[in-house]
Order: sequence, then structure tokens, then C-alpha cells
Amino acid sequence: MSNPVLVEVTRGNLVESRHRGTVVAVDGDGRTLLSLGETDAAVFPRSACKAMQALPLVESGAADAYGFGAKALALACSSHSGEPEHVALAAEMLAAAGRDHHALECGAHWSSDQKTLIAQARSLEAPSALHNNCSGKHAGFICACCHSGTEVSGYIGYDHPLQQEIRGVMASLTGAILARDNCGVDGCSIPTYAVPLKGLAHGFARMATGIGLGPGRARASRRLIDACMAEPFYVAGTKRACTRLMKLAPGRIFAKTGAEGVFCAAIPEKGIGIALKCEDGATRAAEAMVAATLARFFADEPEIHAGLMAQANHSIRNWNRMHVGDVRVTDALAA
Amino acid sequence: MSNPVLVEVTRGNLVESRHRGTVVAVDGDGRTLLSLGETDAAVFPRSACKAMQALPLVESGAADAYGFGAKALALACSSHSGEPEHVALAAEMLAAAGRDHHALECGAHWSSDQKTLIAQARSLEAPSALHNNCSGKHAGFICACCHSGTEVSGYIGYDHPLQQEIRGVMASLTGAILARDNCGVDGCSIPTYAVPLKGLAHGFARMATGIGLGPGRARASRRLIDACMAEPFYVAGTKRACTRLMKLAPGRIFAKTGAEGVFCAAIPEKGIGIALKCEDGATRAAEAMVAATLARFFADEPEIHAGLMAQANHSIRNWNRMHVGDVRVTDALAA
Repeated sequence: MSNPVLVEVTRGNLVESRHRGTVVAVDGDGRTLLSLGETDAAVFPRSACKAMQALPLVESGAADAYGFGAKALALACSSHSGEPEHVALAAEMLAAAGRDHHALECGAHWSSDQKTLIAQARSLEAPSALHNNCSGKHAGFICACCHSGTEVSGYIGYDHPLQQEIRGVMASLTGAILARDNCGVDGCSIPTYAVPLKGLAHGFARMATGIGLGPGRARASRRLIDACMAEPFYVAGTKRACTRLMKLAPGRIFAKTGAEGVFCAAIPEKGIGIALKCEDGATRAAEAMVAATLARFFADEPEIHAGLMAQANHSIRNWNRMHVGDVRVTDALAA
Repeated sequence: MSNPVLVEVTRGNLVESRHRGTVVAVDGDGRTLLSLGETDAAVFPRSACKAMQALPLVESGAADAYGFGAKALALACSSHSGEPEHVALAAEMLAAAGRDHHALECGAHWSSDQKTLIAQARSLEAPSALHNNCSGKHAGFICACCHSGTEVSGYIGYDHPLQQEIRGVMASLTGAILARDNCGVDGCSIPTYAVPLKGLAHGFARMATGIGLGPGRARASRRLIDACMAEPFYVAGTKRACTRLMKLAPGRIFAKTGAEGVFCAAIPEKGIGIALKCEDGATRAAEAMVAATLARFFADEPEIHAGLMAQANHSIRNWNRMHVGDVRVTDALAA
């Protein structure tokens, strides 16, 4: 069985490349609202589930103890571009717990955003772990450990108490079994677990609605989702897809990308959770897919619908800024 | 109908992403030696056909008139990384014809190679058209025009005499009809024509063998192929796939990448031409596909075979240099 083609990339009058994918949207009770492709297949959510991984930071009381506002909570759920504001805030979060970048175990890398990389190349000898796109999440991990008195060193390991706690949180939210046999290691070295896409969507529907969650988890979930929607720059960065999607309908759309073509999203007021994966891992296609999927649920609000579809379907320009083709979602998704 | 999965990307014990594709290998007489997927489908060759587009430079006598050796001819067929040697040689080629970078109509961009981009960011205010990965090809175009007395300005246009000549060359080599309805505009603003993948492979088999070509075209074709094999750094750059593939078997493998997951290759001594396209446009998959396809034709030379398969199947490391997964070709291709 093959997943349907959901995004096409054209050049001139022809389709040049095709992206297949899987999309699922569910409500807080787990009822399927939209299903395309093999939605029972297990998918590594990668960074798309960072808001789930940030729950211990809030539930433990660490976020309050360290005085974290919406920006810090958004950064804890982020894959940021390493812009100066992101780097400074990650350092502040660590400082609140009496730590610095030496505690980070995520590794260092240059920004994947070209403009930011050029600025970094001109001002830095080399990037530090603070510039890693995951430094906010890792700062949150370290703060959670410090607050609870758990040993920080080795916090990225499968058997570390924090990762055990995260495993429990994610199993409960997604309804999936998380164990060594569906575990991989993420880019930032923490465990990532392949879970059915539908379970992932249901997890975000639960976070957005609180349905089926205890009151503490429901409050913490909503606080993290609200923080991301309130501070979308801190979830990604300038011109990034997550940031642009959340800015289109302030306080109404949550969206978070993950590596290898994953996207998770929620529309809290409608009680909807969304998860999708581009089969080939392409970010450009996952971005088009999530925008078009969100648009289906804003059909009665022309301005938001048009804004989302403008992110789904957009032109490709060459080095001379000539319009040479388009990225567009297929009828299977846009319908 | 769907193309087969030819490359898988794994994480832990699971397949995380999948790439479908089409591969064809033919001999100089057009006999099919290998065929996977829809090989009659039309594909934009993009930069993978630059050696074809460089034929007027050689056939017109311009390359000899301007004293171009193997490095300049390789650069005329290249998608280079914008390393200092590439930029300097493109400038020299233009100077030989009494021109400079102002004549280039390809647009400017920063290097897509991270290490080169960082060096450029530290030494340049902004890139010029000489840094464009296509500047060698465009310098060759300009030299061909200058030598024949054709107006240089507008040399990128569909109706310009040079593009008409290239259209004729490519139609003859590939056996395809090239016209406005299968024409797109490439990243560097010249026309690119969607042609059946098998025709593209046949064109490179013809260039490598001379079969079916007049003596002048056969000589010019072989001279360009030989120049690329002799100077693989000038076809791409440090650590780039084309360069590494050609270095594996010096003088025996020609390989050239194109945007959106295309690769063309030839094994002149065996009379083989190869063309392939990753359906979703992914470079990582096209690189694995071309290495594995070439390896099939070196089964009796263990060292070269192993070197090619090591490029096809390779590990993925995260920011802490941990081995987290692999890129690997499927049995459909590796068989």
C-alpha cells in the first residue's frame, strides 16, 4: 500500500516532484475527523512533540519556581533558529536554575536558517550548545531536574528519571506503548519513540481540550499550548513555518514541526488535534500539508482560510526572482 | 502506478522515511540494461545535463580559442560549491573572452555548502553571480557567444541563438522533442526541458561512446566527459557527491547531479549511460541511488564496488556524533 500524493512541486506546466504523506485529525474523544494514508503506521514525532516533553517542567512546579513566563515556556517547546533572542533566553532559563550552557547535552550546531547562520558566522568562532535548536527544550529539562533534586548529568539517557517520566507522559497522551523496541535517538540525543500517527494527533487533542486528563495535566497542557500560541517567535523564529502559522490566527492555532517531515498541530477552540508525516521526510511538503489541513477547519473564516492556503500553495522563485514553479497541495488534501 | 521505494532512512530499528524513484541505464545503442519505475516519464534534468549544454562551447572552437584546459571545461559542466578556486576560474574564463561578472545572467547566491558559506560570510558583504553554482556554465555560454560573434546580452532566453543551439543538441542526444510545452525555467534562468528519463540516459551513453554522433560531436562529447573525470573538484567541490563518485574510479566514472533529485552518469569504458530521479526531489536519496546503480556495473571490481556502496549506504550521526540511523538502498536497487 502506498500513501497518497499530497503535495506537488511544479515547474513550467509540469509536475517536477511529488510528496506522499499521511494526515490525521481527531477530536478530544479520539474520533477521526480526517484520515489520509496509513494513519496507523508508527512515526517518530521528533521535535513535533516537544510540548509533551515539556510537561514535567510545568507539572513539577519548576516553571513557577523559576518564574518562567510564556516566552520561556514557548522556548521549552521550540525548535528555534538560534537567533539572539532565543540564545539569550535559553541562557536565562539555565541561570534561573543556577546552571549554564555546560550542563546542556544536546550538542552544538550552526543555525539552519541562512540569514541567522551568516550573522553567526560573522560574530562567533563556533556555535555553542545554546545555539542548538533544542537548547530551550534542554534548558527546560535541566530546570525540571534541578527543581526536583534529580541528578542533571545524563538527563538525555533512556534510563534517566526525567526520560522515564517523559515516557510515561507520552504513553498516557498518545495511548501508545513506548519502549526500547520503538525507541530511536533524536538529533539532540534524547530518546524519541515511534508511535501511531493517530495516537499523536489524539495526544495533542487531549492537550488542547483536557479531555481524559487529570486537572493538573490538563492545566499544564493548556498552559504550554497557550504559551506557544502567545509567543510564536520563541517556538521557531523569523519567517519559520510554525511562527507564521500561529501568527495567522493568534491564540487559535498551535503548530509544531519535527524533523523528517512531521508536523503536529491543534485548534483548541474546536477541540482538534492534528498529526502528519511526509513519507520522504521533506519539510517543504510537511509545511504545505499542515497549512492545508488546518485550512479545512477554517472554511467558514475566509481570511484565515486564505492565509493558510497561501502558506500551503506558494510560488517558487529562482535566483533572479523569476516565478519558475509552485508548491501546491493536491485535491486529496485541499478538498 | 507508483515508483518503487529505492532508498530508506532508518532511525533505531525502524524505517523513518522512504524515497521512491526511477532509474534507467542504457548502452550506446539504447538497449536497456536496468529499468526501475516509470522510466518513460518526462523529467527536468536540471543541472544534470550541463555537459550537454556545454557542447556548443567546444564544438564552436571557443574552448580552444580561449585556451581552456580540463579545469575550465569541467567548470563549464559544473554545479560548483562557490569555493575560491571555482570563483577564480569562472572569472578567468570570462576574462579570456574580454568579459567580467557583469555579463553573467544567472543571479547571485550564497554557497549551499555550509563550510563554504561560513567562509563567504566572513569575507564577503554579499555573493556575486560568480559565486552562483552555475557560474562556470554561464561563463562557458558567454565565451561561446563571444567567439561566434553572437550578442551576449539575453543569452539565457528561449529564443536566443545559443539556447536554440543547445535545444538542437539536446534533442539530438536524447531523441526527445524540446519545445515550449515541455520547457521550464531553471534556477539560473535558462530553459530546462522535461525529457523521458530513458532518453536522458541514452544521451549520456551517446556522449560517452560516440555511437550515433558525428565525429565532431563525438570528440567534443568525450572531451567534456574526460575533463569532468580528470578534474572532479571543478564539477562540484569538497566532499560533494559528484566529486567523490568520480574520485572513486579516476577516469572511469562520470557523474553529475541536478536539482530535485536528478542524477546522470556514465561509465565510458562500458558504454553505459545512466539517468535517475528521486520522485520527491531529495538530494540525499538521488546520491544513494546513483552510487548503488553505478555499483551494479562494478560487481567484478570489489574495491570500487565497496567504495560505491559505502556512498549508497551510510550512517546518520546526530549533533553529538552518535550513530542514530542509516541511509540505505532497498533490495530493488541493490540487487
